[in-house]
Amino acid sequence: MVGGGPGAFIGEVHRKAARIDGEIKIVAGAFDIDPVKSQQMGKDLAMGQDRIYDTYTEMIKQEIKLPESERIDFISITTPNNWHFPIARDCLKAGFHVMCEKPMTLTSKEAKQLQDLVKKTGKVFGLMHNYTGYPMVKLAKDMVKKGDMGEIRKVVVQYPQGWLATALEKTGQMQASWRTDPKQSGAGGCVGDIGTHAANLAEYITGLKITHICAELTTFVKGRLLDDDCNCLIKLNNGAKGILHASQISIGEEHNLAIWVHGEQGSLEWHQETPNYLYTRAINAPDQVWKRGNGYIGENSAAAGRGTRLPSGHPEAFFEAFANNYKNFTETVKCMIAGEKPSELSLDFPSVNEGVRGILFIETVVASAKSKQKWTPMKK
Amino acid sequence: MVGGGPGAFIGEVHRKAARIDGEIKIVAGAFDIDPVKSQQMGKDLAMGQDRIYDTYTEMIKQEIKLPESERIDFISITTPNNWHFPIARDCLKAGFHVMCEKPMTLTSKEAKQLQDLVKKTGKVFGLMHNYTGYPMVKLAKDMVKKGDMGEIRKVVVQYPQGWLATALEKTGQMQASWRTDPKQSGAGGCVGDIGTHAANLAEYITGLKITHICAELTTFVKGRLLDDDCNCLIKLNNGAKGILHASQISIGEEHNLAIWVHGEQGSLEWHQETPNYLYTRAINAPDQVWKRGNGYIGENSAAAGRGTRLPSGHPEAFFEAFANNYKNFTETVKCMIAGEKPSELSLDFPSVNEGVRGILFIETVVASAKSKQKWTPMKK
Amino acid sequence: MVGGGPGAFIGEVHRKAARIDGEIKIVAGAFDIDPVKSQQMGKDLAMGQDRIYDTYTEMIKQEIKLPESERIDFISITTPNNWHFPIARDCLKAGFHVMCEKPMTLTSKEAKQLQDLVKKTGKVFGLMHNYTGYPMVKLAKDMVKKGDMGEIRKVVVQYPQGWLATALEKTGQMQASWRTDPKQSGAGGCVGDIGTHAANLAEYITGLKITHICAELTTFVKGRLLDDDCNCLIKLNNGAKGILHASQISIGEEHNLAIWVHGEQGSLEWHQETPNYLYTRAINAPDQVWKRGNGYIGENSAAAGRGTRLPSGHPEAFFEAFANNYKNFTETVKCMIAGEKPSELSLDFPSVNEGVRGILFIETVVASAKSKQKWTPMKK
Amino acid sequence: MVGGGPGAFIGEVHRKAARIDGEIKIVAGAFDIDPVKSQQMGKDLAMGQDRIYDTYTEMIKQEIKLPESERIDFISITTPNNWHFPIARDCLKAGFHVMCEKPMTLTSKEAKQLQDLVKKTGKVFGLMHNYTGYPMVKLAKDMVKKGDMGEIRKVVVQYPQGWLATALEKTGQMQASWRTDPKQSGAGGCVGDIGTHAANLAEYITGLKITHICAELTTFVKGRLLDDDCNCLIKLNNGAKGILHASQISIGEEHNLAIWVHGEQGSLEWHQETPNYLYTRAINAPDQVWKRGNGYIGENSAAAGRGTRLPSGHPEAFFEAFANNYKNFTETVKCMIAGEKPSELSLDFPSVNEGVRGILFIETVVASAKSKQKWTPMKK
Repeated sequence: MVGGGPGAFIGEVHRKAARIDGEIKIVAGAFDIDPVKSQQMGKDLAMGQDRIYDTYTEMIKQEIKLPESERIDFISITTPNNWHFPIARDCLKAGFHVMCEKPMTLTSKEAKQLQDLVKKTGKVFGLMHNYTGYPMVKLAKDMVKKGDMGEIRKVVVQYPQGWLATALEKTGQMQASWRTDPKQSGAGGCVGDIGTHAANLAEYITGLKITHICAELTTFVKGRLLDDDCNCLIKLNNGAKGILHASQISIGEEHNLAIWVHGEQGSLEWHQETPNYLYTRAINAPDQVWKRGNGYIGENSAAAGRGTRLPSGHPEAFFEAFANNYKNFTETVKCMIAGEKPSELSLDFPSVNEGVRGILFIETVVASAKSKQKWTPMKK
Repeated sequence: MVGGGPGAFIGEVHRKAARIDGEIKIVAGAFDIDPVKSQQMGKDLAMGQDRIYDTYTEMIKQEIKLPESERIDFISITTPNNWHFPIARDCLKAGFHVMCEKPMTLTSKEAKQLQDLVKKTGKVFGLMHNYTGYPMVKLAKDMVKKGDMGEIRKVVVQYPQGWLATALEKTGQMQASWRTDPKQSGAGGCVGDIGTHAANLAEYITGLKITHICAELTTFVKGRLLDDDCNCLIKLNNGAKGILHASQISIGEEHNLAIWVHGEQGSLEWHQETPNYLYTRAINAPDQVWKRGNGYIGENSAAAGRGTRLPSGHPEAFFEAFANNYKNFTETVKCMIAGEKPSELSLDFPSVNEGVRGILFIETVVASAKSKQKWTPMKK
Repeated sequence: MVGGGPGAFIGEVHRKAARIDGEIKIVAGAFDIDPVKSQQMGKDLAMGQDRIYDTYTEMIKQEIKLPESERIDFISITTPNNWHFPIARDCLKAGFHVMCEKPMTLTSKEAKQLQDLVKKTGKVFGLMHNYTGYPMVKLAKDMVKKGDMGEIRKVVVQYPQGWLATALEKTGQMQASWRTDPKQSGAGGCVGDIGTHAANLAEYITGLKITHICAELTTFVKGRLLDDDCNCLIKLNNGAKGILHASQISIGEEHNLAIWVHGEQGSLEWHQETPNYLYTRAINAPDQVWKRGNGYIGENSAAAGRGTRLPSGHPEAFFEAFANNYKNFTETVKCMIAGEKPSELSLDFPSVNEGVRGILFIETVVASAKSKQKWTPMKK
Repeated sequence: MVGGGPGAFIGEVHRKAARIDGEIKIVAGAFDIDPVKSQQMGKDLAMGQDRIYDTYTEMIKQEIKLPESERIDFISITTPNNWHFPIARDCLKAGFHVMCEKPMTLTSKEAKQLQDLVKKTGKVFGLMHNYTGYPMVKLAKDMVKKGDMGEIRKVVVQYPQGWLATALEKTGQMQASWRTDPKQSGAGGCVGDIGTHAANLAEYITGLKITHICAELTTFVKGRLLDDDCNCLIKLNNGAKGILHASQISIGEEHNLAIWVHGEQGSLEWHQETPNYLYTRAINAPDQVWKRGNGYIGENSAAAGRGTRLPSGHPEAFFEAFANNYKNFTETVKCMIAGEKPSELSLDFPSVNEGVRGILFIETVVASAKSKQKWTPMKK
C-alpha cells in the first residue's frame, strides 16, 4: 500500500474494506511521505519491519527482488490525488497490478498514458469508484440492461454535501486542505472530488456515455481556490438528457449521492445513504421497493447476488460496497496469476477506462464552465 | 365562475376548495363553451336557472345589472389557458374582482395588459398558483425571511410527472389534449404547465428573483407539438445559483414538486406530495422535521398558522392549500368591498404580478432553449 | 347540527368536510348549550335566524313541523360524548336520520337501545369513525376480502398521541378537559377516545371480529381521572392474534394511527399521517407501494376509486376522508328519501352496529384491565 | 473458533466482522461437528493445518499446551444453541476468554452456572447481542441516561420477520431446521431467536429491567414444534409499561427490529434496518433526526463516537455493529492480558449477565404463555 499514513481517511477505509473477506493481507507499505510516520503506521499494522518502506520507489525496488510467492500481489494507491499518476505508472512499469483511488490522475494526458501502459503491460488496474460496488447499483445496471426501463430518456444524478459550507480548509483540517488545493486536487474542486462519482454512477447504471455538458461551477466560500458547487445539464449518446449536480456547500447534506433514471417503460431511483433499497416504477402499477439480500435480487442480477454477504434485513453499507470492488479485483488478479481468464462477473470493477472518463469529465466541466456556449462536447 | 363544465378537472377543484370555509357560494356561471353543457353543470350545482349563462360575456352583461348586494362578488376563471386573457380582461373592465387559473395568459404582452388593467381598475386579482397555499411553504418563506438559512446560495426545485410518457393526447384524453396543443396552451408544454409552478415556488420561498436561465427543452414523445421535459440552470438576483427541472415523461412520478434551498447558515427541503412536513438542517446539529399544526409552527410563521384548519397529525393536503388562496383572496375582496385596507396576511396570495413573472419565465425558457448561448437573461 | 358551537373542534371539522362536495347545507342548528353562543354560531354561518335554536329539543320540535321539502334531512351530532345518546335517541324517534360523532354513547346499554331504535325506525344512522373513509383503507379492506393476503394471522394496530403527556386539562384547555372527565367521556380515557378508532380500523380492514382482549390501562399523569395509555393483546374470530395499543402520553406522536395486517400470503401496512400510500408485501417479491388516485387503485377497489376526488400525486387527507363518510351517508339518505335501495358502495360508512362494537370494546378493555385473568371475552 | 463450518451463517458473520479492525486473527478452530468439514473450512481460511481441530475438546487440550504468546487469546462460539453451554463451560474452565453467540444456553440453570464460572475464573465473557453495537443505539442509551427523555413511561419494541411464514424447515433449509427444533434451540422458537434481542435492546437503552410479562405465543405454521409468533405486554422496574412483539410469520418483514421509548420529557425511535438514524421528539418542538458520524453525535455519546468508523453520510451497518462488540471485547481481553483495568467504554459489550437475562426472559415468556394469569413475574 502506498499512502494511508496516520490520520489519513481513505487509506484506512481501504484497509478495513480489504480485510472483510479475508482474502487480502497488507504485507508491505510506504504509508506516508514522512518516513517516520510510515514506520509508525507499519508498526500499528503489526507488519514485519523489513516490508515498511520510506518511499514507494524503494518499495517497488525491493519487492520486485523477492520471489514471486513472497512478493506483494498488487499495490493500493491511497495518496493525495497528485501522487496517483507517478506511483501508478511506476507500479505498472515494474510489473505490479494496481488498485488506485480516484481521481486516477490530474490530467487527461496522464490518464491516457496510464491507459496505454495498462494495455501494454497487461496488468490489472482497479479504480476505486466505490459506489458502483453496492449490490443495488448492480441490480439497477442489470435491470436497465435487460430493458426493464425501456430506452432511457432522462437521468438525474446528484451528489450534495455540506461539509465545506465554511472555510474549513483555513482551520487546518486535513481533508479540507488538500481537497481545496489545486496543486493536490487538480482543476476541479467539487466536480473532481464528487461530481466524478455522479458521472461514473450515471454511466455505469445506464450503460450510456455523456456526450455534451453545459456546466456552471461556483465558488461560494470566499478565498477558496476551487469550485465548491457544480451544476450541469448533460446529453447522453442515445439522445437522452439529464441533470448532474454536486455541491460541498449544501448544509446538512452528507454523501447524498442519488440517481433517477427514466426510460420509456419505467424508472428507477437509488440513494447511497440508504443503499439497500432500489425503487422502480412502471406505468399504471404500484411502485416497487427492491430490498437487498432477497432471493428475487439474485434472480434478477447475478452481480447483485454475488455482491451480497448478509441476508435481507441485515443492512450492508459502505465498507461492503468497497469490499465488493476489492473482491472482484482480487479475483481477477488471482486469475491473471493463475493464467486463467477472469469471468465477466469478476471483471465488474471500475478500471483504467473509467479513470480516463473521469478525468475527461472534469476537464470538460471546467471548460464548459468557462465557455459562453451552451454545450461543450465531452473531451476525447 | 367561467369554465369548469362537465368533466373539467380544475374547475371542480376550484369549487370544492372554495366551499370548504363556507365563505364562498357559486351563484352564477358560464361553465362551458357549449351552452347545453353549461346549463347541465348549473343544474348539477343546484343553481337558479337565471344565473346560468351561455357565455361569459352574457354573464358579465347581466350580472353587472344586478344590485351590488345580489351581484357576484368575483369571477373565477377555470377555462383552458387560451381563454384566460380575454375573460380576465373583460371581467376587470366590467369591474369584477378576478381569481384566474394559471398560466394567466398565453403571452407576456397580454400579461402586462392585465397588470396595467389591475393597476388602473384597482380590482383584486388572484392567480391560482395553489402550491404556495400550503402552510409549510409559508413557514419556509418566513424562515428564509427571518434569516434562519442565512444568505441563500443554491436552490434546487423540481416538478417531475410521468403521465405523458406515452402519446396520451392521441387517445382523446381531455387533460392531455389541450395541454399538448400550442393553440390552447401557448409556447410552453411541460414548462408552461408545471415548470412555472416550480419557478413560482422558488421565488416565493426565497424572496429572490430568477435573473438568467439556461434551458434545455425536449419533446420525447413522437408527434407531440410541445416540450414534455424541461431542464434549466438558473441564476438568482443575489448571486445564488440553481437548478429547475420539470418533466411529464418521468414514469411513476405524479406531482413530485419539491424544493431544496441552501443558505450560508442552513438549508430546507419540502415535498408537495407529503406537504405537512418541512425539513431543515444546520451546521453540526440534528436535522429538524417541522410538522404542520403544532404550536411551534404558528410561533415561527403567522401565515402558516393562519393557513391551518386541523391540529397536528390530522393531515391537510391539496384542497386545503387551494382553499388558503381562496381564503386570503376573499378576505381581501371583502376588505375592498368594505372599503378597508387588507392586512399583509390576507394579501398573501399570488396575484397579477406572479402571473406576469410566470409568462416571462415561460418565454425566457423557450428563448433559451433555442439559443446556443449559455445564459439568457430573464425577459422583462 | 347539534353541537359545534364557538371554539368547538369536531363540529367545525364536520362542517368543513360536509361542505366539500356541495351536497350538504347547514340550514338549522342548536350549536351550544349556551343559547347566546348558539345564536352567535348560527350568525357566523349566515343562517336564517328562525332556524337557530336554543336547544336540540326545540330544534326537533320545530323542524318536524316544517314541510318535508324545507325541513332538515338529517341531524349531525357533534356534542361532548355524554350528549350523544339522548340526542340521537330523540332525533331517531322524531323521524330524523342521524350522523353521530363517536363514541356513540357512554354505555353499551344505551348503544343497544339506539341499535334497536334504528332497526325499528328504519332511519339511516351514520357514526363518524372517519379513518375508514380514507381511500387506501378501503383498498386495504378490499384486498383482504379478495384474499390477496391469504387467511389473516396477525394484526398490529396502534394509535399513539403525545398531547396529554402533561396535565393539560388543568390549564383549562377545552379538548383536554372533557376528554379526561369520566362524566363527559365515559369509562375510557385513551381507550375510548382513540383506542376505539384502532379497534374499528382493524375490524374494518380485516373483516374479522375481536373476540378476546387482554388489556393494561395506565394513568401516567398524576391526578388524571381516566387512563392515558392502553396496551392490549387481542384475539380475532378466525384464530388470528394481535396487538392493539394507544397512548396520549407518547411525546411527539400526533395521530399516528397505523396498522399492519399479516396473512398467509402477504401483508399490508397503512399510516394515517401519510394516508395516500398503502404498502403491501408478498413472499419473495419486491414490496409494493400503492398510491392513491392511480388507475390501478380503482381497478382493485371500487370503494377506493369512488372515494377519490383528485388525481394521483395531489394529496388528499383528513377532510376528504371525513367527507367520504358524509358522501356515502348522504347518498344513502337520498335513496331512503327517494324510496330507492342504496347500493352496497353507498352503504360503506360506519353505522349503529360499529357504534355498539365500539362501546363493547371500551367496556371489555376496562373490565380486562381490572381482571387478573389473561383473557376477557369481548362483551356482547 | 468453534462452529462456523461450511455453509454456516453466523460463523462467517463473526469472521468477517472480527477482521474489519485488523485486531483479530483466526489462528485455530474446530469448525464443524464433521471433522472433514472442519478441515475444509480451516483450509479455506488458509490456516496452518496443525491448528485445525476435529473437536473443540481437542482444541482446548492442544492450545493450552502452547506458550501463552502463541496460544489463542479467546474462543468464539458460533455453534447451534445446544452446544453453547458445554463449550463455553469447558473453555472458561480451561482458562480461555469466550465470545459466545446468543442465546447463551438452553436453560437458566446452565446460564447461571456460566455466570458463576465467569465470576470464579475472572475470564472475559462476551455475548453477541450484536444490535447493541450500533452507534445510534449507544447514543439512545446515553441520551436516556442523561435524562433527555425524562423518566421513562412506555417502551414499544418489536422484531418482526417473515421468513418462516411457510414450513421452510421441511425443505431442508439449514437455518430454518435448527431454529424450529426444540432440541437445538430450547423452549423458545421465535421468542428465543429474536424476542430476546428485543428484550435486550429495551433493557440496554432504557437501563431498566423487565419485571413482569404477559405473553401470548402462537405457532401458525402447521406441524412446527416451536412458536413462530410472540406478543407480550411488559412491566419495567420503574413502573413503566410496554409492548414487546416478535414474529417469524410477518411476510415481507426482514429484521425489522425497532424501538420507541417514551419518557416524561421526550421520546426516541430507532430502526435496525436503517440504523444510522435516531429520531427524537420533545414537547412543542420539531422532531430531530440524529445522523451517525456527525460531530454532535460524539459530543452527546462517547460510546457512539467511538463505535464509528466512517464520517457521516457513508453508511455503516450490521458488520460494523458486530465489529463494535468485538472491538470492545478484544480491548477488554487485551487489558486483562496486560493486567490493566479496562475502561468503562471498552466494557460496553453484552456479557454473561445479559446472557442470563436472555434465558430468564425466554423461560418467563414460555411460562406466561401457558398461564391463565395475566402477569407472570420475571424469573430470577
